[in-house]
Amino acid sequence: MGRAFIIGIAGGTGSGKTTVARRIAEIFRVEEVLLLDQDAYYKDLSHLSFEERKRVNFDHPDAFDTDLLVEHLRALRKRLPIQKPVYSYKEHRRKEETVRISPAHIILLEGILVLEMEPLRELMDMKIFVDTDDDIRLIRRLTRDIKERGRDLEQSIIQYEQTVRPMHLAFVVPSKRYADVVIPHGGENRVAIQMIEATLRERLRQVDNEEPQL
Amino acid sequence: MGRAFIIGIAGGTGSGKTTVARRIAEIFRVEEVLLLDQDAYYKDLSHLSFEERKRVNFDHPDAFDTDLLVEHLRALRKRLPIQKPVYSYKEHRRKEETVRISPAHIILLEGILVLEMEPLRELMDMKIFVDTDDDIRLIRRLTRDIKERGRDLEQSIIQYEQTVRPMHLAFVVPSKRYADVVIPHGGENRVAIQMIEATLRERLRQVDNEEPQL
Repeated sequence: MGRAFIIGIAGGTGSGKTTVARRIAEIFRVEEVLLLDQDAYYKDLSHLSFEERKRVNFDHPDAFDTDLLVEHLRALRKRLPIQKPVYSYKEHRRKEETVRISPAHIILLEGILVLEMEPLRELMDMKIFVDTDDDIRLIRRLTRDIKERGRDLEQSIIQYEQTVRPMHLAFVVPSKRYADVVIPHGGENRVAIQMIEATLRERLRQVDNEEPQL
Repeated sequence: MGRAFIIGIAGGTGSGKTTVARRIAEIFRVEEVLLLDQDAYYKDLSHLSFEERKRVNFDHPDAFDTDLLVEHLRALRKRLPIQKPVYSYKEHRRKEETVRISPAHIILLEGILVLEMEPLRELMDMKIFVDTDDDIRLIRRLTRDIKERGRDLEQSIIQYEQTVRPMHLAFVVPSKRYADVVIPHGGENRVAIQMIEATLRERLRQVDNEEPQL
């Protein structure tokens, strides 16, 4: 059996990249497609005080433990299981427990900066950027911050202006250049999702041919 | 047998849209995929003097006989043959003869403005925009104008600045908004071409299932 096929799905906050990744993952069986989120690989900040942790820029590439993510992707590519970290957004630190993730034929790696990082790009067979207008992304982010995360509007806008937006312009937008395919309109883009589905079905057919028939 | 599947492939001059369309067409058999170029549907300008014809803006939507193209696309969609016009760039007019085009399961319609025109978009099952940086597109256009069309640099740049560029910004760029998928790097984008190929193979498989088995 050959190595797993790795797809990177990047895009700014509120772009719909997670929706695209989930829609695709839902179509297939668990052993066929595995969804991996870059957010689980935030660096463990237990050595910092809670106040210090709150001041960390979580939209900067340095906030991620990319070495561990690369190690895990390499293992999954070779069809080996990993122990995925669990991150607590509330405490801004990695939890003690990990989750055992079994390998799959296709790995969907999803996150704002997955195309920004060269060692991640080098492992990808397909690079997708979900591109949504900035105002639409902001509407989605504010709605999520306020309705789901219980933040207030002012606090949410300050964070957006001070870190989210500058990091988006500095790191997320330039990484679009590495995409093989750019998907506008995010998760509601039925035609693009069908294209990705067809490509993955073709890949799974190849895997079937590689495996000894029962 | 159901109706044909129509794909629109747009992009600016020198974007690589024709290369993408040809690469895809080459993969399939003639009865499977048909390549149709919007350029064949320039309006017949026989009623104008040659000098008047030369002054026509060939990058404006009004330069195209979109009514005829829509009529032909509707016929091809119903799997009926068409008599495709033949356009003479040298004389800026439509030739007397036409070419009989047999229908195919999949129609690739390629041209700078195919996504700009609503009646064309309405007939499309998939809308692709080939997106290439403006300077790279200019390099390709200048090279083609000078090496293949025997124009001089100054003449080519004047045409680019006076009509090609303003029409690109006014009509081609805004039409990107209608794309289901945006393909960067044009004809050299192997991954994107494979995605389109997989999608079309899936479509052809559906056609096979619709047809009575021999």
